[in-house]
Amino acid sequence: MMVTPHTDTPRMNSLGKPLEFQQVRSFSEFLCQPLEVEDYVVQTMDDVSPAKWHLAHTTWFFETFILKPHLEGYRPFNDAYEHLFNSYYNSVGVQFSRPHRGLLSRPTVSEIYDYRRYVDERIQKVLNREELVPLFQIGLNHEQQHQELILTDLKHVFGFNPLKPIYRESPNSPCGDRHEFEWLSFEGGIHEIGYEGSDFSFDNEGPRHKVHLEPFSFASRPVTCGEYLEFIGDGGYKTPTLWLSMGWQTVQEQGWNAPMYWENEGKGGLFTLSGLRKIDPEEPVCHLSYFEADAFARWVGARLPTEEEWEVASALAPVEGNFVEEEFYHPRPLHHVAPAGPSMMLGDVWEWTSSQYSAYPGYRAVEGALGEYNGKFMCNQFVLRGGSCATSVTHIRKTYRNFFPPDARWQFSGLRLAKDI
Amino acid sequence: MMVTPHTDTPRMNSLGKPLEFQQVRSFSEFLCQPLEVEDYVVQTMDDVSPAKWHLAHTTWFFETFILKPHLEGYRPFNDAYEHLFNSYYNSVGVQFSRPHRGLLSRPTVSEIYDYRRYVDERIQKVLNREELVPLFQIGLNHEQQHQELILTDLKHVFGFNPLKPIYRESPNSPCGDRHEFEWLSFEGGIHEIGYEGSDFSFDNEGPRHKVHLEPFSFASRPVTCGEYLEFIGDGGYKTPTLWLSMGWQTVQEQGWNAPMYWENEGKGGLFTLSGLRKIDPEEPVCHLSYFEADAFARWVGARLPTEEEWEVASALAPVEGNFVEEEFYHPRPLHHVAPAGPSMMLGDVWEWTSSQYSAYPGYRAVEGALGEYNGKFMCNQFVLRGGSCATSVTHIRKTYRNFFPPDARWQFSGLRLAKDI
Amino acid sequence: MMVTPHTDTPRMNSLGKPLEFQQVRSFSEFLCQPLEVEDYVVQTMDDVSPAKWHLAHTTWFFETFILKPHLEGYRPFNDAYEHLFNSYYNSVGVQFSRPHRGLLSRPTVSEIYDYRRYVDERIQKVLNREELVPLFQIGLNHEQQHQELILTDLKHVFGFNPLKPIYRESPNSPCGDRHEFEWLSFEGGIHEIGYEGSDFSFDNEGPRHKVHLEPFSFASRPVTCGEYLEFIGDGGYKTPTLWLSMGWQTVQEQGWNAPMYWENEGKGGLFTLSGLRKIDPEEPVCHLSYFEADAFARWVGARLPTEEEWEVASALAPVEGNFVEEEFYHPRPLHHVAPAGPSMMLGDVWEWTSSQYSAYPGYRAVEGALGEYNGKFMCNQFVLRGGSCATSVTHIRKTYRNFFPPDARWQFSGLRLAKDI
Amino acid sequence: MMVTPHTDTPRMNSLGKPLEFQQVRSFSEFLCQPLEVEDYVVQTMDDVSPAKWHLAHTTWFFETFILKPHLEGYRPFNDAYEHLFNSYYNSVGVQFSRPHRGLLSRPTVSEIYDYRRYVDERIQKVLNREELVPLFQIGLNHEQQHQELILTDLKHVFGFNPLKPIYRESPNSPCGDRHEFEWLSFEGGIHEIGYEGSDFSFDNEGPRHKVHLEPFSFASRPVTCGEYLEFIGDGGYKTPTLWLSMGWQTVQEQGWNAPMYWENEGKGGLFTLSGLRKIDPEEPVCHLSYFEADAFARWVGARLPTEEEWEVASALAPVEGNFVEEEFYHPRPLHHVAPAGPSMMLGDVWEWTSSQYSAYPGYRAVEGALGEYNGKFMCNQFVLRGGSCATSVTHIRKTYRNFFPPDARWQFSGLRLAKDI
Repeated sequence: MMVTPHTDTPRMNSLGKPLEFQQVRSFSEFLCQPLEVEDYVVQTMDDVSPAKWHLAHTTWFFETFILKPHLEGYRPFNDAYEHLFNSYYNSVGVQFSRPHRGLLSRPTVSEIYDYRRYVDERIQKVLNREELVPLFQIGLNHEQQHQELILTDLKHVFGFNPLKPIYRESPNSPCGDRHEFEWLSFEGGIHEIGYEGSDFSFDNEGPRHKVHLEPFSFASRPVTCGEYLEFIGDGGYKTPTLWLSMGWQTVQEQGWNAPMYWENEGKGGLFTLSGLRKIDPEEPVCHLSYFEADAFARWVGARLPTEEEWEVASALAPVEGNFVEEEFYHPRPLHHVAPAGPSMMLGDVWEWTSSQYSAYPGYRAVEGALGEYNGKFMCNQFVLRGGSCATSVTHIRKTYRNFFPPDARWQFSGLRLAKDI
Repeated sequence: MMVTPHTDTPRMNSLGKPLEFQQVRSFSEFLCQPLEVEDYVVQTMDDVSPAKWHLAHTTWFFETFILKPHLEGYRPFNDAYEHLFNSYYNSVGVQFSRPHRGLLSRPTVSEIYDYRRYVDERIQKVLNREELVPLFQIGLNHEQQHQELILTDLKHVFGFNPLKPIYRESPNSPCGDRHEFEWLSFEGGIHEIGYEGSDFSFDNEGPRHKVHLEPFSFASRPVTCGEYLEFIGDGGYKTPTLWLSMGWQTVQEQGWNAPMYWENEGKGGLFTLSGLRKIDPEEPVCHLSYFEADAFARWVGARLPTEEEWEVASALAPVEGNFVEEEFYHPRPLHHVAPAGPSMMLGDVWEWTSSQYSAYPGYRAVEGALGEYNGKFMCNQFVLRGGSCATSVTHIRKTYRNFFPPDARWQFSGLRLAKDI
Repeated sequence: MMVTPHTDTPRMNSLGKPLEFQQVRSFSEFLCQPLEVEDYVVQTMDDVSPAKWHLAHTTWFFETFILKPHLEGYRPFNDAYEHLFNSYYNSVGVQFSRPHRGLLSRPTVSEIYDYRRYVDERIQKVLNREELVPLFQIGLNHEQQHQELILTDLKHVFGFNPLKPIYRESPNSPCGDRHEFEWLSFEGGIHEIGYEGSDFSFDNEGPRHKVHLEPFSFASRPVTCGEYLEFIGDGGYKTPTLWLSMGWQTVQEQGWNAPMYWENEGKGGLFTLSGLRKIDPEEPVCHLSYFEADAFARWVGARLPTEEEWEVASALAPVEGNFVEEEFYHPRPLHHVAPAGPSMMLGDVWEWTSSQYSAYPGYRAVEGALGEYNGKFMCNQFVLRGGSCATSVTHIRKTYRNFFPPDARWQFSGLRLAKDI
Repeated sequence: MMVTPHTDTPRMNSLGKPLEFQQVRSFSEFLCQPLEVEDYVVQTMDDVSPAKWHLAHTTWFFETFILKPHLEGYRPFNDAYEHLFNSYYNSVGVQFSRPHRGLLSRPTVSEIYDYRRYVDERIQKVLNREELVPLFQIGLNHEQQHQELILTDLKHVFGFNPLKPIYRESPNSPCGDRHEFEWLSFEGGIHEIGYEGSDFSFDNEGPRHKVHLEPFSFASRPVTCGEYLEFIGDGGYKTPTLWLSMGWQTVQEQGWNAPMYWENEGKGGLFTLSGLRKIDPEEPVCHLSYFEADAFARWVGARLPTEEEWEVASALAPVEGNFVEEEFYHPRPLHHVAPAGPSMMLGDVWEWTSSQYSAYPGYRAVEGALGEYNGKFMCNQFVLRGGSCATSVTHIRKTYRNFFPPDARWQFSGLRLAKDI
């Protein structure tokens, strides 16, 4: 199928509406409703944070960047929280050690909900101040990022536990038909990518700029579990020449032989937030590291797309998908093929690109502590695009750049193929 | 002062009464009353276990060693618990990884209390079976050991937390007068040590056997904080020649400069289960490793007693002291000097001896899984004697042998001096 | 100064002549002449290899890729060497553990020289076979890369030793005058980069392809030690906001406070292959990690160039510089300013770019074991350009892409500034 | 067989003659004759030191404790050596890091031989000073200890190397007949152990003192490889209940399934200083850790002797055996059964005892730096007795206490059984 891409990709927020404070704040708590108190406390690896930490840190963000500097006479809820719930803002001060977040039984969950109430009440006093809108927008988008982490971190906590607790029972899954993937062709030449507009976007999405691309082919849908099972069956995890050097080392050291949360190479099913169940060959494969996505692509004889290619290809993709609002919490088989252009680019699974995360030409981090938000991570991370079943539809954009180290697997991360023409 | 020791030390349980099931079981839960749910979950170092794990494991012990083999038709509360709450019994099966006990949010605290109810109810059916008395006695003594650990582990959890939570407010501390210590002299020759009798004792306390000792002097009381402050002030932590080689290495690697829980070398006070407070120079120093106890003794020009000397010297010591039943949860200054013989040998602080933990002549571990209780730890541990403020008065004996690796500091461990004559 | 760049950068090998076997092979041994036998054996960190390993591995390369497949009846010198001297070619077989290369006393240095003789003799028989020219060229360029490593690895071995051995006494250093740097401006738009031509180049240098660049400014010379001393003096190593997140973590963990080989933050001089000596403020700073180069640029208010910018800017740079053939083994102060365009782009110090090492559009690794040469390292590495005082003038090209992880400092790595216009 | 032990064990040095300086010093160099220069440099694990370090450190010992304080006007060979070759004497100064000894290519082997010459020449001037005899004796006994380490460390270096170098070709091994072991019985009661006399002994061998022992049985000879093969065949390495807790953990972590230097559980033979060869079932098993010795004894239903039992039993043992002077460098099958009492107590293999290394009653370390020789290691080590095929006959005594951590296997360490009567 030949696709004529728009010469430039969408510049807008997918919805174009500013987020509403109360709605976003409540959604964090909605996501925690199924939890027992104990589930809020635990940290099963360094990258995971306890749910109560997420609830507190997102609150700390509003307290630190809005209330303290902008609400006269504001008295902090608890002075110790400045240190305890600072994630990585060196400009604000020294942070409590990240790998030890799960070693703090106090403050209790109940105290943290009190903290949320306390901050939210005082926020009301400044909620309508025009000059604070940019801060609110970043604060709410920040909280949405942590909402996704709440889900992926809980999945790690539950997946680690031999009792395999269930977060929420799954609604019936719509059956997926088999969709052979097609190669869609895109023309080379000068394209523009990056965000431009007046809605919210993160600083790393801009400036919008020209790139020169060679013609490329782009898969009509993400790789499925069925396809990935063939890779495993063909000895994918035992063939060093398919892997990046660092990937092969990781496979050996970690004993990887299947995606994360697959039991017994898939024969035992996969663990989801709705418990352990069989693998559906038509559902998109997820919980892959970059290393696995890259090795799979090499096995196929294709490659991962660059993030520029991904963004260009997304021009024709519909703004629809399986987002966190569906409350499905897992990617689903493709059931709605896009009329023109690639399907399933938004939602379901984050798609690894071959692009190492770096600054766009002309990028400049904002001044002050918020300048630490994105820029200082531009090293040893790869870009993922498109959002997942744990992302809010009000959060994602086609220009949105997520990034994780190449060995990270606990996100809903899958892949889509590309190749040279 | 010259003391004429009995030629043999007491053979009896200090109270001589079997422990009562309900009383011991309730006491574990009594100790947990001040906790928030979150406090039950956390594990701040490999040696620490979460309180909920202690509550479950002690229950597992009765389920595994009494109900499963001896109550016909018994159905386990949850099959997964056999693995989850097995501490180190290879004969029973593979154990859930010890350093990861704090990564399990489930079963919840409430489920674990249900587990206790479930097991305790079924225990009633076999409580009076004569042939099970030895198993009950080891099960209850085992639970008492974990009661002490519940307190010391919680102290570690709270001490680690920058919020410095309080376990229980302290009652007023009785003031301690200054008691210069005296050297008490003991004759050499053949003595007998070790437990002999028909009450409960652990297998490692026997067989009772003869030892030949040289004459020795024994301090009339434990070392105090005031004395230990002099050691610090004299550069004790900076003088390698005072330390065992492995001790000096540990001091360097861990950055030790005072006992555990002392803030700012003691200038900032010490952390107790009742919070942070000033140091009383007359209270026994505690939370020392063997390395520190040994270095202090060398600094004084004395040494630690062997466990044989300790046991011989204890013959004249009164069976009294500051035990867990006092609900003070910290050693107290000496206020009652023993009329003859050494004071404060029982309760307050465990006293490090210079004896590496090993089998008495003729020792044989019991058959079966319970043979794993004590014998397999006879390696790289030192013996401590006398019990502490976290030990039950119904648990301790003069023949009782506690043991920890030489770098362990989170127990209520102090020291008493001895020397050659 | 305004520079009109050629629209495309040079496509040629700087010299355009194929390397000669005997000349390259002898040069490896020439570099080892100053060594004692013991100096050949030691490996002071995982990244360093013993000199004798380099001598053997480069020989193994010819034996494995030329003699074994192409010389009929060839009998290996020693079957065990296939395993011992395989660096990272999984297609060839399992490799002896890299971090343990320094734990092998055998084969002896003398045996390894015998190995070189043995292979070189047999190579004569196939040296003139036309179809092997590409293999010879990669084998010789490979050996040249290891020649640079022999020097940097020996520097690490000597620098680690408290006796601070001298590799070779330094000839008199030509004095450097102070050269204020200038910003040279380059136009944006479409440029071509990458190697194209019939001389040797590594696969990662191509395909030649179009890139779109924004206009940029490029420093006329690398950053000097004097400039870097200002950064240190201004608290550069103590200011977290200057650093990438991972960089700041590395600074803390490694205790960095100056470039590698600087003693006492430079007050004690710097260690060179000619021993410890004073720092010349006019010499290019080197032994910087990417993290340090990046932090310095941020401190200045500039940035590092991308590799595309670097290559475009290099069009006007003269093919001259301080290479290994000078036998100076350390960067030198600038004494010859380029008449038009940037000075000192080749030789002296490798220049970190802000580009993470990845495949050019259309890149395809060669088939077979040699496909493991470059492609599998395209992850978590940054590109360096231009060669150094330890690189051969016959080895470098303007399209040459070196790459190292961002914390690597033991190469002769410095930086040059760029900025947006 | 019933043996009537002497009521006290021998108090003497086995030979009763002071060691001669030149003879001991030359013997170190004799042991190094088969080495290539490279073999002197390498350190294959933290516990191993390079041969050149041993040669230098033993020289440093004489320089530090004899020449510097006692030879007027002595000028050190090289001031840096005070730091480089100090092993663990904090009183002398800071030591060069032990695990990094193998990272120093300089000083060269030749320089270290020069150092030996330099020191030995100056030693001549004080060799006959009566008051220095005790220092000479400790210096020479110290050097003999390092001679044993030279051999065991070289064995580790060679054993690690896939080329399996040979230290010295083995002379023909005398064939060993099968000797069923007998239990020899010893009476309990008061015995005396420890060194007393005027010849040289280490401080840890005294004071001689009374111990009370229960009656015990003692094996007539050490355990053989054939017997140990039965243990392996019976699943010894797979049965956790046979092991100390820490031993089982070590087995799991290290993947032990046979003694050190056994290939493929013994089916591939064993590596000796004369190369790889078949196992002789009659030769004493060696290169066992304490954990393995202890597990084997438990499997048999016996135990290890205490060091007191060993010393008492040794009274009737002949002072003969396979020592380093035999130049066999490996234990040999028993061919000379002692007429009365146990055979093969001296030489061949060090025998692990169940005694954790601690101070004898009344032990006091000597004043000054030499007080660091023995006492500071009395922690987490077990005592071995009897010397080995790598020990000098002029070095060993029946009262001699060697000590190693329980997981050490690279010494010639075997075991002999004991049991209660």
